[in-house]
Amino acid sequence: MRNPQLNRNGELTHLLTLDGLPRDIVTHILDTAETFAPLAEREVKKVPLLRGKSVFNLFFENSTRTRTTFEIAAKRLSADVYNLNINASSTSKGESLLDTISNLSAMQADLFVVRHSASGAPHLIAQHVAPHVHVVNAGDGWHAHPTQGLLDMFTIRHYKHDFTKLTVAIVGDVQHSRVARSDIHALTTLGVPEVRVIGPMTLLPGGLEQMGVRVFHDMREGLRDVDVVIMLRLQNERMRGALLPSPQEYYKQYGLTAEKLALAKPDAIVMHPGPMNRGVEIESSVADGPQAVILNQVTFGIAVRMAVMSIVAGSTND
Amino acid sequence: MRNPQLNRNGELTHLLTLDGLPRDIVTHILDTAETFAPLAEREVKKVPLLRGKSVFNLFFENSTRTRTTFEIAAKRLSADVYNLNINASSTSKGESLLDTISNLSAMQADLFVVRHSASGAPHLIAQHVAPHVHVVNAGDGWHAHPTQGLLDMFTIRHYKHDFTKLTVAIVGDVQHSRVARSDIHALTTLGVPEVRVIGPMTLLPGGLEQMGVRVFHDMREGLRDVDVVIMLRLQNERMRGALLPSPQEYYKQYGLTAEKLALAKPDAIVMHPGPMNRGVEIESSVADGPQAVILNQVTFGIAVRMAVMSIVAGSTND
Amino acid sequence: MRNPQLNRNGELTHLLTLDGLPRDIVTHILDTAETFAPLAEREVKKVPLLRGKSVFNLFFENSTRTRTTFEIAAKRLSADVYNLNINASSTSKGESLLDTISNLSAMQADLFVVRHSASGAPHLIAQHVAPHVHVVNAGDGWHAHPTQGLLDMFTIRHYKHDFTKLTVAIVGDVQHSRVARSDIHALTTLGVPEVRVIGPMTLLPGGLEQMGVRVFHDMREGLRDVDVVIMLRLQNERMRGALLPSPQEYYKQYGLTAEKLALAKPDAIVMHPGPMNRGVEIESSVADGPQAVILNQVTFGIAVRMAVMSIVAGSTND
Repeated sequence: MRNPQLNRNGELTHLLTLDGLPRDIVTHILDTAETFAPLAEREVKKVPLLRGKSVFNLFFENSTRTRTTFEIAAKRLSADVYNLNINASSTSKGESLLDTISNLSAMQADLFVVRHSASGAPHLIAQHVAPHVHVVNAGDGWHAHPTQGLLDMFTIRHYKHDFTKLTVAIVGDVQHSRVARSDIHALTTLGVPEVRVIGPMTLLPGGLEQMGVRVFHDMREGLRDVDVVIMLRLQNERMRGALLPSPQEYYKQYGLTAEKLALAKPDAIVMHPGPMNRGVEIESSVADGPQAVILNQVTFGIAVRMAVMSIVAGSTND
Repeated sequence: MRNPQLNRNGELTHLLTLDGLPRDIVTHILDTAETFAPLAEREVKKVPLLRGKSVFNLFFENSTRTRTTFEIAAKRLSADVYNLNINASSTSKGESLLDTISNLSAMQADLFVVRHSASGAPHLIAQHVAPHVHVVNAGDGWHAHPTQGLLDMFTIRHYKHDFTKLTVAIVGDVQHSRVARSDIHALTTLGVPEVRVIGPMTLLPGGLEQMGVRVFHDMREGLRDVDVVIMLRLQNERMRGALLPSPQEYYKQYGLTAEKLALAKPDAIVMHPGPMNRGVEIESSVADGPQAVILNQVTFGIAVRMAVMSIVAGSTND
Repeated sequence: MRNPQLNRNGELTHLLTLDGLPRDIVTHILDTAETFAPLAEREVKKVPLLRGKSVFNLFFENSTRTRTTFEIAAKRLSADVYNLNINASSTSKGESLLDTISNLSAMQADLFVVRHSASGAPHLIAQHVAPHVHVVNAGDGWHAHPTQGLLDMFTIRHYKHDFTKLTVAIVGDVQHSRVARSDIHALTTLGVPEVRVIGPMTLLPGGLEQMGVRVFHDMREGLRDVDVVIMLRLQNERMRGALLPSPQEYYKQYGLTAEKLALAKPDAIVMHPGPMNRGVEIESSVADGPQAVILNQVTFGIAVRMAVMSIVAGSTND
């Protein structure tokens, strides 16, 4: 069975997940992003790679921030961008997801950026689009958020250069985090020898050890001598209810404070996918401190999304 | 009294309805669309005809799908496009429709694409805009949906070539369908010798015979030997209440099944304006079958809308 | 303490308020707008001044009309425009305003156009943005609406030429009007010798005399021999409740009728920021009459916003 993200020549034609994506393709994306990063400094921040192409942002789940980063990336590639809030549209008229997709394909779309609350929706769409359409997953359920995973890798490589010497800790609500899943797959693929996950038992999924990950419930222990700390957002809905005692208690045990960060290597970097809950999973002084590279992640994210879009749009998808 | 869609030279300056639109103008639109259709296959799908022009999508009634087709058409003509959801705006502040229109005209709009739940709203707007503004009706109440009618004609001509030899059947809820009205006017104008309408008495308007249309209540009878079947969407709100016994009963009598389609000519084409209710007005195997040209309609719709916009924007409107 | 709108060379780098803005800068904006006004008549209404720049419309308070005028101005300058309805986004996820702004800055924004219901929000944002980002206030609370003030000045100069010989009356709900505040500051700065404010005691703020303004409660007295009448919109919510007896009574006392307008100079012009409440603060025959320049204000507004955006984006902000 062929990887549904690759065409018959083994080139990336859709980006659906980092799970199983070959290392040379991940590296190729990061290298391509490297060429786009300097654009940010230029007067005119545009290249004509996708001129005349149509990029559709299909957001079945609202996310202004993520949608905007894709819109920026697409416009910097000179594409025409169409933002579709699909909830308000045809699906409310009883049309099926696949009929909606067929219709948009027939409008000669070149690229669908898909955010959906259901895990697997971008895969389903990729299987049904016309041969001229490419699909990029912008987050599906708890499953995957591959462009976030890639921009995290870009950030780590930018500051730490060599993946094969690193210890990376991911902290927080891994169970409900598509970012964590994408990061773990990418780190493993890129040869990071020690990937750690830190969190309370109620917020860690099963099967982490099989993914090659070391599990810690004690944050102080887990942070010891790491090079990279990736904090996860604690969704508001987790803060109440059975999974957690209280936000205060969570902060005490799993919030990244300056005192806990001191256990990591002195030059460790601190990452977060945003938006942050200051005082819940991260102390403000750390979020704004010299080790934080959180806003740099946002900047790099534009270059990484430009890389992904230009690579898939440049491939044939059969 | 002059046709409000034509300027003093008899050129199309607004597109409001297909009722009374001269045959040579309809044909000119279809011929122009023919020149845009090959763009879809090109690397860069753009032409500079409306460069620097401002197209305003004024959707007083929400329709992501239709709005998107106009947005694509306008951007392929290199126009700047502004999407205005008017409900949320000035009219909620108590401003009248015509004050809103005067204001937008004063922003130097070139073209208004208007969707409104009230029949006649685009006419009213066309009568009041400044001389430099053109109006295209994107659907008003039950009255007209002229670009849908034109793309249907484009589709029929593409597959059947000669209108003067055809039998065309329109099936379903004609009473509440602006698409049906626009199709009937266009088919008659283009010289189709037999236009049939098929539906239950409760969903057919009066006066159809005067429009030159043959009425059938028995679908099997009405489909016999037709060249073209145009299925209409059954609005959800019609499915309950007094007009129809039940969706199941409707499907049995007026749903397009493979078995009923077999009564049409063997090379008959099946059309639908979308979105479809599979299993209500059309069987899935027919919707996806070899005679269906439903997605081609969508593709042709872009070229037809480009044609309409470039023609009206190229005219003076007095 | 440096004016937060000016950089160290005294150039405009943010536009936050007209209060304290030097006269030569106001005049420079009006002169620059003068060069953009003829664009409206051209076939291609665009100039490449902001090509490749990213303008973000950050509307924390909904206003389709104002947002659209900025979007038009930005696109005519060839910028890429991103419309963000912030309510629906991160702030609903509990992220702070400043974290949202930091994030958007990190996406390499060049210009933020900010509308916010809280007075002072654009100042706060301007203090925190990265050095490459410029802020334009599109209306904050009751505080300021500087681009409306500037387009009003442009309109007055267009019709009356010399500010130093004018009597200008502002009529209505000054208390809740950011437009009135911006107009008063600009008129004073530009040397208008007599600025009058007309309204009921309940709708006038304290301190007007200290701003150099003459206060009238009798409209007939206040309009006598004025050159310019600026009518203010009466917000619906003021019409009920304790501040006003009734809309009818308000109209009788402070509505601009033809009869009251006759007390002004014969060539007086009538302005209104829109949207108008016909029959509440202005008689329809006056709104549509020969002295009204209300739609011209809208047209000039595009040129003025182009001027503001091109000036601030062309400055360094430190």
